[in-house]
Amino acid sequence: MTREQLRALQWQKLSTGLDRLFASNAFYREKFARSGIAREDIKGWDDFQRLPFTTKKELAADQEANPIYGTNLTEPRDSYVRLHQTSGTTGRRLRWLDTPESWGWILKCWEQIYDAVGIDANDRFFFPFSFGPFIGFWAAFEGASRIGRFVLPGGGLTTNARLQLMLDNGITIVLATPTYALRMAEVAEEEGIDLAHSKVRGLILAGEPGANIPATRQRLEQAWGARLYDHSGMTEIGSIGIEYDELPGHLVLLEDQVIAEVLDPRTLQPVEDGELGELVLTTLGRWGSPLIRYRTADAVRPSWQFRPGGKPFVALDGGILGRIDDMIWVKGNNVYPSAIEGLVREFDEVAEFAIEARELSSGTRLVICIEPKPSVANGPALLASIARMIQDRFYFRPDVVLAEEPLPRFELKGRRFRRVHVDG
Amino acid sequence: MTREQLRALQWQKLSTGLDRLFASNAFYREKFARSGIAREDIKGWDDFQRLPFTTKKELAADQEANPIYGTNLTEPRDSYVRLHQTSGTTGRRLRWLDTPESWGWILKCWEQIYDAVGIDANDRFFFPFSFGPFIGFWAAFEGASRIGRFVLPGGGLTTNARLQLMLDNGITIVLATPTYALRMAEVAEEEGIDLAHSKVRGLILAGEPGANIPATRQRLEQAWGARLYDHSGMTEIGSIGIEYDELPGHLVLLEDQVIAEVLDPRTLQPVEDGELGELVLTTLGRWGSPLIRYRTADAVRPSWQFRPGGKPFVALDGGILGRIDDMIWVKGNNVYPSAIEGLVREFDEVAEFAIEARELSSGTRLVICIEPKPSVANGPALLASIARMIQDRFYFRPDVVLAEEPLPRFELKGRRFRRVHVDG
Repeated sequence: MTREQLRALQWQKLSTGLDRLFASNAFYREKFARSGIAREDIKGWDDFQRLPFTTKKELAADQEANPIYGTNLTEPRDSYVRLHQTSGTTGRRLRWLDTPESWGWILKCWEQIYDAVGIDANDRFFFPFSFGPFIGFWAAFEGASRIGRFVLPGGGLTTNARLQLMLDNGITIVLATPTYALRMAEVAEEEGIDLAHSKVRGLILAGEPGANIPATRQRLEQAWGARLYDHSGMTEIGSIGIEYDELPGHLVLLEDQVIAEVLDPRTLQPVEDGELGELVLTTLGRWGSPLIRYRTADAVRPSWQFRPGGKPFVALDGGILGRIDDMIWVKGNNVYPSAIEGLVREFDEVAEFAIEARELSSGTRLVICIEPKPSVANGPALLASIARMIQDRFYFRPDVVLAEEPLPRFELKGRRFRRVHVDG
Repeated sequence: MTREQLRALQWQKLSTGLDRLFASNAFYREKFARSGIAREDIKGWDDFQRLPFTTKKELAADQEANPIYGTNLTEPRDSYVRLHQTSGTTGRRLRWLDTPESWGWILKCWEQIYDAVGIDANDRFFFPFSFGPFIGFWAAFEGASRIGRFVLPGGGLTTNARLQLMLDNGITIVLATPTYALRMAEVAEEEGIDLAHSKVRGLILAGEPGANIPATRQRLEQAWGARLYDHSGMTEIGSIGIEYDELPGHLVLLEDQVIAEVLDPRTLQPVEDGELGELVLTTLGRWGSPLIRYRTADAVRPSWQFRPGGKPFVALDGGILGRIDDMIWVKGNNVYPSAIEGLVREFDEVAEFAIEARELSSGTRLVICIEPKPSVANGPALLASIARMIQDRFYFRPDVVLAEEPLPRFELKGRRFRRVHVDG
């Protein structure tokens, strides 16, 4: 499939879906009407750009105003058979209903995901978690079941019992969060279980950052003796991102199932290949509760030049890099704090550091405060090297300064970045 | 369908299944060979009686000798996609594998169960438990999903969160254990939730006794304002017992999916209608890991005169009455301690009681020790009344004696029954 063929396929699916939304989805019918858009106005990709964005805030407000499911329902209420909820870590919890058709589409996406990571007939799956109202693992479980694989649920068990169940049954693939995969490795070590030589060959990890953080990744792959696959999904959209077996370090989006845009959050225009932008998604299959141009607030760096699995799908370098709100704009360039952090960490001479984005009326200035190791003789030279390398990579020159006093030491989850609004 | 037509259907299914067992099931091929039985020996129902029984002990020994799944597998090992385990409360834990075909059969049984309790298109299901390696609720969940109903899983949540989820989503049917249904009612009361006026109209309860105990039943039905349905299933056999909507107080076995025998555990001959016996089951569909003449050790009292849902299926009066090992044989009559308990409880004058089965070389003597309430003037008359009523109902006369000192007060789960072996 070429990119043009993919676009044609997307358009065909989108057109059919839009027909349904204009016919019977109260949320989108009203939303499009408010924007002055009629069905016949959307004839091609240029028109697609006219469709208004959808935001999480807007969806939450709709569910609050129209309890309890809101109005984003294309089918009659009693056609819906599945409900999932967001975890509610950012703002209000969202409820998400699916029809059997939409749920089938989600399982179809999992078929593609399992294909991407090279699942074969010998693989045996373990799902070590409780099956609550969160969508991801239900979909993964039923998806693996649908392709005829051995599936073993481990709800309501201790970590030790789960490890034993996993080993006893010759499991090869484990689905978990990065945190829980680390916890399992920890308990295995306590119990003298040699996880690295078990039959587990693959970890599919999702639900939080971690699988895309090199240090976490390395630790997990070593402890488990297994290949790690970063996966991404959302209650609102479904499971649409996977790290292909042949393309480590990239999250690939199933663009035959979603339209992916990566936009500059200020201009709302597409970013260049390799530039940071906000991921905006449009469903091509979950028509029971669809999302059109959904602003995910996820910061990503797209590459369209790969062909994972022979498919012209976009690959996100480093996966989901964080929330777009944390992105820094400096003199027309954008950068994500983790990218600066990665670069500063390349300097062995740095003991600790802090990044401050000073927002002035004239624009943002980035100040990087460096505490060198005690052994460093020439502090100013170190600062200059760091500033030069940032300019080489990110096309702007930050202020790199010496810390006046020792910086606070941060735990793994500590934040070395802060945004400061400066008046005047 | 008449009973004869049912028997013909059973025979047809059994014949096809036996062909498969003799062809490729190591466990049964060897077992039948040891009994000197060839395939062609089994031509009709009289021959069926020649098939040897299967016991849980035997299955556990097979799994121990042939780790980890044993030899009761009719298909190649990698045809199996589901694993469940017994809870291991009686003896060793058993592992049970299913092929997609067998799992499909289990879901088909659930279709019949939901039909029996009168599920319709408006029903919405809630499953408030963690989804671990126990079979029952997985099968119930996927069965409800397969008939297109709204299904809501509540794994990994607090009871309070589960109650809220249930109420928010207009749930009408809840599946749980009796213990957990009681717990939910308790928390609802603490939280000021009016469970009796929620939309929940049915409770399908399984996994332990309770739904068939009148006092527990009454308490649950009142607290929930809902009809309770007793359900029974086993990891080894599947979900094959349900209380039909029209036949309260009876567990009906899906005899088009299993052959049910109720046998006198001493003579191993069928008991009469209404007599106590041991339930012995033969699968008619789970051919991947089948059981032939499986001695369940469950004590039941069968009635073949009902036609629940127009079907000639056996109805077990009072459900599963307990373990067959607790059954008492007195002078050719058998009785279950709970039956004696039920009768004694009809006497308001009784404060507490204890039942002792004295096993002498001449047979068993039943001694019922009564502690009357302090207000009772004529103790001996009370004892005589009790003895007479037992003789009227159970056809033997026990010793009914006055307690010499106050009897211990029992909690709900306390045992008022003991068995005493008397030498000489």
